[in-house]
Amino acid sequence: MSLPPVLHPAGSTPAAVPYKRIATEEAWCPAEMLDLYRGVLEAGTLDDPGFQTMFSFYLNSDSTRATEIRDYLVDIGDQRLKHMDERGIDMQILSLTSPGVQVFEPELATSFAALSNDMLAEAVAKHPTRFAGLAAVAPQQPDRAAAELERSVRKLGLKGAVINSHTFGEYLDDPKYWPILEAAEALEVPIYLHPQVPPPGLIGPLLERGLDGAIFGFAVETGMHMLRIMIAGVFDRFPRLQFVLGHGGEALPFWLYRLDYMHRAGVRSNRYESMRPVDRTISEYMRENVSITSSGVAWGPAITFCQQVLGSDRVMYAMDYPYQHGAEEVSGSDQFDMSDADKLKFFQTNAERLFKLSPA
Amino acid sequence: MSLPPVLHPAGSTPAAVPYKRIATEEAWCPAEMLDLYRGVLEAGTLDDPGFQTMFSFYLNSDSTRATEIRDYLVDIGDQRLKHMDERGIDMQILSLTSPGVQVFEPELATSFAALSNDMLAEAVAKHPTRFAGLAAVAPQQPDRAAAELERSVRKLGLKGAVINSHTFGEYLDDPKYWPILEAAEALEVPIYLHPQVPPPGLIGPLLERGLDGAIFGFAVETGMHMLRIMIAGVFDRFPRLQFVLGHGGEALPFWLYRLDYMHRAGVRSNRYESMRPVDRTISEYMRENVSITSSGVAWGPAITFCQQVLGSDRVMYAMDYPYQHGAEEVSGSDQFDMSDADKLKFFQTNAERLFKLSPA
Repeated sequence: MSLPPVLHPAGSTPAAVPYKRIATEEAWCPAEMLDLYRGVLEAGTLDDPGFQTMFSFYLNSDSTRATEIRDYLVDIGDQRLKHMDERGIDMQILSLTSPGVQVFEPELATSFAALSNDMLAEAVAKHPTRFAGLAAVAPQQPDRAAAELERSVRKLGLKGAVINSHTFGEYLDDPKYWPILEAAEALEVPIYLHPQVPPPGLIGPLLERGLDGAIFGFAVETGMHMLRIMIAGVFDRFPRLQFVLGHGGEALPFWLYRLDYMHRAGVRSNRYESMRPVDRTISEYMRENVSITSSGVAWGPAITFCQQVLGSDRVMYAMDYPYQHGAEEVSGSDQFDMSDADKLKFFQTNAERLFKLSPA
Repeated sequence: MSLPPVLHPAGSTPAAVPYKRIATEEAWCPAEMLDLYRGVLEAGTLDDPGFQTMFSFYLNSDSTRATEIRDYLVDIGDQRLKHMDERGIDMQILSLTSPGVQVFEPELATSFAALSNDMLAEAVAKHPTRFAGLAAVAPQQPDRAAAELERSVRKLGLKGAVINSHTFGEYLDDPKYWPILEAAEALEVPIYLHPQVPPPGLIGPLLERGLDGAIFGFAVETGMHMLRIMIAGVFDRFPRLQFVLGHGGEALPFWLYRLDYMHRAGVRSNRYESMRPVDRTISEYMRENVSITSSGVAWGPAITFCQQVLGSDRVMYAMDYPYQHGAEEVSGSDQFDMSDADKLKFFQTNAERLFKLSPA
């Protein structure tokens, strides 16, 4: 066994650096949401083996990982600020942890999204230089989700939306969800497309070997979701709309060449009704409508590769707290092989521009 | 529309270079196999929407892509050699196209694998400096597959095995298939883990938007398969066994950091019965038991990234004929940003060593 004894070794606080470290994909939730998840689990009515395995673990396991995450998620006050200080994080951009409200019945989903946005705005108001937030929305009610996004941005000062991939196995390429996309474009705020566990039709062989979650299934689900959006022509309809992908862009940057080649082949061959000509190539959409973050991928080779192929304006830092929160990963990210100018963009100014953060 | 008018523009033959271009993932099949596939399709008894969509297209479409592929696949003589000459390919390592015999009932699968291996060996015997071959085997009958691999290597001179990912939704991490792996290790030949379309439990939302095949689903299926093998401890049981992955290693090189992190987290948390401690990390297995090829990824940034993180001894050239065969991709690959020494390894000597090719 070559596994180290702990996942997050006690590291010293990273050194002072000439940029703010803005962590862009940091999770939280009200304690009440975990109670609601427990209710969903116990009712046994949600046909979603991915949700069941994930929250059977996170709600019930006495492992260090699960107990730590339960504890850290629900705090958006002093404990979180202390962890940020210890790890050298200047600011967190907070979003409601996956799957957010997207497993609730529609009325509950919409009302709980609003409640959580109010709570998040309150934490931001208390610590405006340390926290910013993305709005939770309930795709189950698209028009109300659009209205909640508008309220969250205009009234609460939140900086965009988070959508935790599928909603009961449906994706944002379905035009019924487009009111949300229209609102985001009009408000000029990005949508963070965050992973969740794949739905029943996409999880079988992953689940058999524990590959459904962050290790692999998250990227399958979320990379596919982003591709569905591009292939459906969403960015032709909403050309200024901006998305954010975490986890090194869910590997889509690695695939740009093959995606362009096979998308072209698919369109030209008329093989699929659902793959028709669109205005631009996949790599063009990726470079013009998508930014990516380093959440969970504190690894220079992959992140500098993403800068190389997407441009350094589209790659941002993230930690993925509390799922991943080692101080040694922050220090390691400081050492990435990039120019000082690119490092400033990566840790600070790309996020400030995209999320329209006020200068401190 | 920014798509060029043809997929494979007429390019001039690539320039002479100081290395042999050995293409390591090149597909063929007997014409009879396409007839058998047509029979499977028409019988309607195979519960595999991926196979249905793929071969409804490839067997029936009058698109340039489908007609060309039908024509090119079944020739392992003069036409193929002419195409190789035009594209500057010195040698092809041939394998039975996906899904090979893995959709047939067991007896047919085993007997057709042997027949196709005999045909392949005959083509190699006619053109020993231009062709080498990998053996088709039928996982449906593991002991007979192991025997067929031994016959193919010892009697026919084939250089390894090709397995087209799942067999009726099952994977090589299941110990019932391990006689095949044991034979490959004992014979000191690699297994090329080639993609096929994901099985029913892993295809739903991919298929809805035409993402089931080479554009994305192939990598989901095959990357997952390789991970299942590593996580199950297959390389602890068979430490000298070597696998090959195409398509830039199905993006696993991009994921090494996250795979190691989340595998460690998964093992430590005891979340899954099917994810128990193994001897090495995912990145160690990747660097010690897996080689990758550039099939379908004629793109310097991704391929040199793979060399950087796996080592230049584990990255080989492939074209993916006839699915992808542009002369401009060969010329482009000649221009990859790597040292002359690494380029020699990439195009020639890694393949010669791994597949034990005789010097010309």
